[in-house]
Amino acid sequence: MIDRLIEKIKKTQAPIVVGLDPTMKFVPEHIQKKAFARYGETTKGAAEAIWQFNKAIVDAVCDLIPAVKPQIAMYEQFGIDGLIAFQKTVDYCKKKDLVVIGDVKRGDIGSTSEAYAVGHLGQVKVGNTLCRGFDEDFVTVNPYLGSDGVKPFIKVCKEEKKGIFVLVKTSNPGSGEFQDRLVREEDGTERPLYEIVGEQVAEWGAECMGDSYSNVGAVVGATYPEQGKILRKLMPKAFILVPGYGAQGGKGADLAHFFNEDGLGAIVNSSRGIIAAYRQEQYVEYGAENFADASRAAVLAMKEDIAQALAARG
Amino acid sequence: MIDRLIEKIKKTQAPIVVGLDPTMKFVPEHIQKKAFARYGETTKGAAEAIWQFNKAIVDAVCDLIPAVKPQIAMYEQFGIDGLIAFQKTVDYCKKKDLVVIGDVKRGDIGSTSEAYAVGHLGQVKVGNTLCRGFDEDFVTVNPYLGSDGVKPFIKVCKEEKKGIFVLVKTSNPGSGEFQDRLVREEDGTERPLYEIVGEQVAEWGAECMGDSYSNVGAVVGATYPEQGKILRKLMPKAFILVPGYGAQGGKGADLAHFFNEDGLGAIVNSSRGIIAAYRQEQYVEYGAENFADASRAAVLAMKEDIAQALAARG
Repeated sequence: MIDRLIEKIKKTQAPIVVGLDPTMKFVPEHIQKKAFARYGETTKGAAEAIWQFNKAIVDAVCDLIPAVKPQIAMYEQFGIDGLIAFQKTVDYCKKKDLVVIGDVKRGDIGSTSEAYAVGHLGQVKVGNTLCRGFDEDFVTVNPYLGSDGVKPFIKVCKEEKKGIFVLVKTSNPGSGEFQDRLVREEDGTERPLYEIVGEQVAEWGAECMGDSYSNVGAVVGATYPEQGKILRKLMPKAFILVPGYGAQGGKGADLAHFFNEDGLGAIVNSSRGIIAAYRQEQYVEYGAENFADASRAAVLAMKEDIAQALAARG
Repeated sequence: MIDRLIEKIKKTQAPIVVGLDPTMKFVPEHIQKKAFARYGETTKGAAEAIWQFNKAIVDAVCDLIPAVKPQIAMYEQFGIDGLIAFQKTVDYCKKKDLVVIGDVKRGDIGSTSEAYAVGHLGQVKVGNTLCRGFDEDFVTVNPYLGSDGVKPFIKVCKEEKKGIFVLVKTSNPGSGEFQDRLVREEDGTERPLYEIVGEQVAEWGAECMGDSYSNVGAVVGATYPEQGKILRKLMPKAFILVPGYGAQGGKGADLAHFFNEDGLGAIVNSSRGIIAAYRQEQYVEYGAENFADASRAAVLAMKEDIAQALAARG
């Protein structure tokens, strides 16, 4: 699956993933009204609103980008109805030939991680029949439980030719609280925990290579460019999924270090910055009615910003 | 919610939680057959089978125990249909007056954790209406992203009088890979990461106290009794949810350290050991038809095992 992602990045010339993280306040009123008229102010109404919102944005940007990243929490908050909208979004994006990264941050002990892996990337056995639950191309994985919590995902990735991104250094302000802790190594030297996790990602990734990059990637926040630089070297074959661009404070210039010299190796996520572009001053002229066009303009601006940052590093 | 859990533990004299983690191989053939006859070998058929299985077990043991812990991965593997069975299970157990611990191990950056918190413990705003998605009493939370990933859960716990259990030292064999790493403190001393997380749990918990224990508890595996002893002291007001008893290798005698001198402070989970008891040699006489009676016998044996371990510590 990493090969397909790379092929799509090359084709679109855009190492960009649009985060489909719809909160109700981002959904324009006319869409909310229509959904509530049909289903009331219910979880079903909310799910209909975010599905229509997503669909319009995907239609407007799908030719420009290689991938989308729906954040499952934003759907799960509406319970079953929200998760149905998640599934519809995943399936629709795949139909539009987009690579779908399910931002699920799952991770558990071995047998339980296996269930998550099967439920999001693989097939589950029912009697003598193989069925699919959700069906993303990649998912994000939380490594806190160790290798036996991650390897079941890798097993399913191999079987299904899919991929994962393991949380290494997250974009949030408090990510350092545990991830930056200095850990003593056997030889007496000290390194932050995220480096240890990053090395582990490289090791896990060696088991599951595509043509030039591994199907096991890493999540490293745009908000931590210095750490990105170090991790880029520690995991040369890992694609880095970079959240935190835009609304969270990461800038184009911060991103250069996340890429390898081949111009590949990273894919930058923007969520609010794209899907709620119509609420930003610079796109306000589009108006709420044309929110999807504003999203398209924001994708083009982001593409340019990243291209400039990569060109500037020489 | 911790007060309600404690009240129920005192009433049942059983610091036990039954893990409702149904994999298809645990579900007796007669239940699978009936479900498949109705819905085919589909995710809907699987969901019906695990729901009927759960219901029979809950009916058989609900007077003996204070709480259940459905592991959402085991439902999520069947996609939407599985999650409907999860919700039915949660709602049914609450109707049976059981405390429900959703073993969801969620955790993300702030705004996203808020969505998970709202979706599993709280209420989500749709237009001007407050709706509920899932509705557990407690959930488990992964702390890898730091305080800003955990605090949104605590906020909702305060509003809703609910609780969380934060992963500190998990029961799996590989949990030490990151959790046991020796971390340097400001004063130059070194401690394993799980102690740092444990201390943080105590700090988070101080914000959200019940009468005698906090609504912020911790997960510490029965398979690590020595670490349990240390963590018990580090987090005196945190209830410890102890997985890993039984099938994963934890024994009654290992459990004594997880409890405080008041005989409280821990609740021990058994999943396979209870729900698949009919497959164990000692309960084989019950037969697959009477699987729920075997589960009842296994709960009684576990209750006795823990009581003896607590008595033996003097």
